[in-house]
Order: sequence, then C-alpha cells, then structure tokens
Amino acid sequence: MLGVDPGLTRCGLGAVTSTGGRVVRIVDVGVATSSPDTPLELRLLRISSEIEDWMDRLEPDAVAVERVFAQSNVSTVTGTAQVAGLAMVAAARRGIPVELHTPSEVKAAITGNGRAEKEQVTTMVTRILGLDSPPRPADAADALALAICHAWRSPVGRRPASAPAPAAGPSASTSSTTGVTAAQALWLEAERRSRRQGRRVAPARGPVGR
Amino acid sequence: MLGVDPGLTRCGLGAVTSTGGRVVRIVDVGVATSSPDTPLELRLLRISSEIEDWMDRLEPDAVAVERVFAQSNVSTVTGTAQVAGLAMVAAARRGIPVELHTPSEVKAAITGNGRAEKEQVTTMVTRILGLDSPPRPADAADALALAICHAWRSPVGRRPASAPAPAAGPSASTSSTTGVTAAQALWLEAERRSRRQGRRVAPARGPVGR
Repeated sequence: MLGVDPGLTRCGLGAVTSTGGRVVRIVDVGVATSSPDTPLELRLLRISSEIEDWMDRLEPDAVAVERVFAQSNVSTVTGTAQVAGLAMVAAARRGIPVELHTPSEVKAAITGNGRAEKEQVTTMVTRILGLDSPPRPADAADALALAICHAWRSPVGRRPASAPAPAAGPSASTSSTTGVTAAQALWLEAERRSRRQGRRVAPARGPVGR
Repeated sequence: MLGVDPGLTRCGLGAVTSTGGRVVRIVDVGVATSSPDTPLELRLLRISSEIEDWMDRLEPDAVAVERVFAQSNVSTVTGTAQVAGLAMVAAARRGIPVELHTPSEVKAAITGNGRAEKEQVTTMVTRILGLDSPPRPADAADALALAICHAWRSPVGRRPASAPAPAAGPSASTSSTTGVTAAQALWLEAERRSRRQGRRVAPARGPVGR
C-alpha cells in the first residue's frame, strides 16, 4: 500500500503493509523534492520519475493519493494537482488500483477527528507504526497516514471501489489467461462500458479543413 | 511546433510548421477525448498516451501548452492542470522544450485583442492557415492557435526562454559528444544550477524512525 501526498516542492511517499486487521507495518517512507528554481516541466519530470521508481521498487497492491481541491490554497493547487495526476497515471500504467482520499477522511481515520492538526496526525502515525521518532517532514507522515487510512478501509481481498476489475495484480503484470497486461485490461473494461453508453473514448484525428 | 490545449474531456492538439517568418502551415490537428464515466486515473492515462503518441509521431521541436490558472473555472481546473502537467512531462522526458502561454497571450498574438471571443480565434486560425473550413471543436482551433502563437514568438534558431540548453534536438535523442539523452542533459543542467544555489533536488529516502 503506497500513499502519495502530492506536492511540487515536497511530495511525501509512504508505504505500509497490512495483514488485513488493524496491524500495519512501515515498509518505506521518504520525500521526493524539486527546486523552485528549476523549470516547471523538469520539476514535474523529476517528481514523476521518483514516484515511478517507488512503484517499480515496492510493487504496491494499491496507491492512495490525496484528493486535491481547487478551492484550497490557490497559489500551489496547480502544481499539487499536477503531481497527483502524475502519480495516478504512473499507477494506472502499471495496472495498480488508485484510490483518492480527502484530507479529512485521512485525519478522521488516523485520529478520529476530521479536523485534527497536522502534528496530531504525525503523532498518531508514529504510534500506529511503532516508530522511535516521528517521520519528518510532515509530508512524509501524511503519505504514511494516507497509506494506513487506505489499508484500514480496504481489507485484504476487497477491491477498491474506483478500480474496475483488473485481470492481474500489480506484480503479475500479464494475465495468464488473456495475455493482456493489467493496464490493458483496465482499459478494455473502461472502453467497453463507455461504448455501452454510446460515448466515444477514442480521439478524433487527422487534418481538419483543406 | 505542437500546441496542447489541455482538457480532461477534450484535449486539443494542433501542430504547425514555420520557416521563420509569419508563414505557418498546418501539420495535423485533432482532439484527444475521455469519457466522464471512466475512472479519473484511466482518463488521465488515455489523454497522456494520446499526447505521447503525437509527440513520437510528429517529433515537434517545441511544445506550447496553455497556462492553467487556479482562479479560472474552479470545477474543471484540477483536471485541466493535470493534463497540462502530463503534456509537460511527456515533452520533458523527450528533451523537447516546453513553453507556457496564457490564453490572453494567444488571443493577442492571433487576433490582436487579448480579450477576443473564441469564435474570433477560430476565424483567424482558419484564415492564417488557409483552411477550407474552421477546425472543430474549439479545443482543436485553440491548440493550433497556441502552436501559431509560439511559432511567431520563437523565430527559428532562438531557444525558448524556459528551457535550459538541451544537448540535442528532440529527433536526435542522444548527444553524439556526451552520450546522454537530451532529457538527461536538461536534468544535469538543472541540477547543476540547483547545487550552485545550495538547494537539494535529490529526494530524501529510506525508513524514518526505527
């Protein structure tokens, strides 16, 4: 279970394992960073590459990303939304189910209070995972909180609600019966549903005019 | 020159060539689409894959993306920002310089009026490119307008301001002298500058606590 607290300057990454109950263990935690002095496209590429490295290294069975609201903190929301999008695409490309959680969902799951302060979340994450010292910066603790929240809300064997039936788990990227990758299976399913509803998924192409 | 008018339901894509003067010719135009009934991560993956296909097929020397403002149209800004981010990363990964243009910059370049109506932009794009009929939908025309705007603002041989010296053009993805790709060269330059300023680009990693 990988949690991603999206951010352009600091993107929290935290992975936990769960055996199905309330017991969760830390796998890894860190922060991907990029300098504000770097051109935006290179900052995004940097963070995206880090997220992909984590996914390839840890092969999480699900990715929990913080849901970004356009209303909150207007000055940074664009970059935050972009990093969240990159994390979602990196997971989808690998056939890993994606779940979005709001900050208040995470706070409520971890502390019992949807309006808890950041420090309280860090304290509870430290306690739940039995760490000797609190994860720093707060983005790292928030990523672990996302992963814990998702682990608790998704008992082993229950499929996350937003992901259409993947043909194979993330570590088995090719289905033994159909020969398609998990990502392709997700697409086929999405397109099938889209066709049923008479909507187009395929893009329009070719020169217009002349 | 590829223009990208970012959008989650409709993403306009328009490519033009320029010989350095005001004469521009259409190369291709189209719209990548995704259905609102599809899970968000699969919509983003779909649009991202389309954008990457266009880049691989056309090998543009630059990509112009519409700058997204958090203030405008709050309900769709998150998805729009995410698609813009995916386009920027796709270009950066290929070593293609990225330039952002505001809607008013584009309107001013194409029509002479930064507050022109959408229909006026479409009319001028049709006229400038000598098309028999206007590109539809408006997203397609807007993408061509972005490409034209960028072509006129970036005379042949002038390097776009936001891109640090790439070692090789987008079609020559490996530099003959250093053996690094253009994307790697961009990164090395960005990191060098970042280090000079005493900032970290590399991510913090490893378990925290125990």
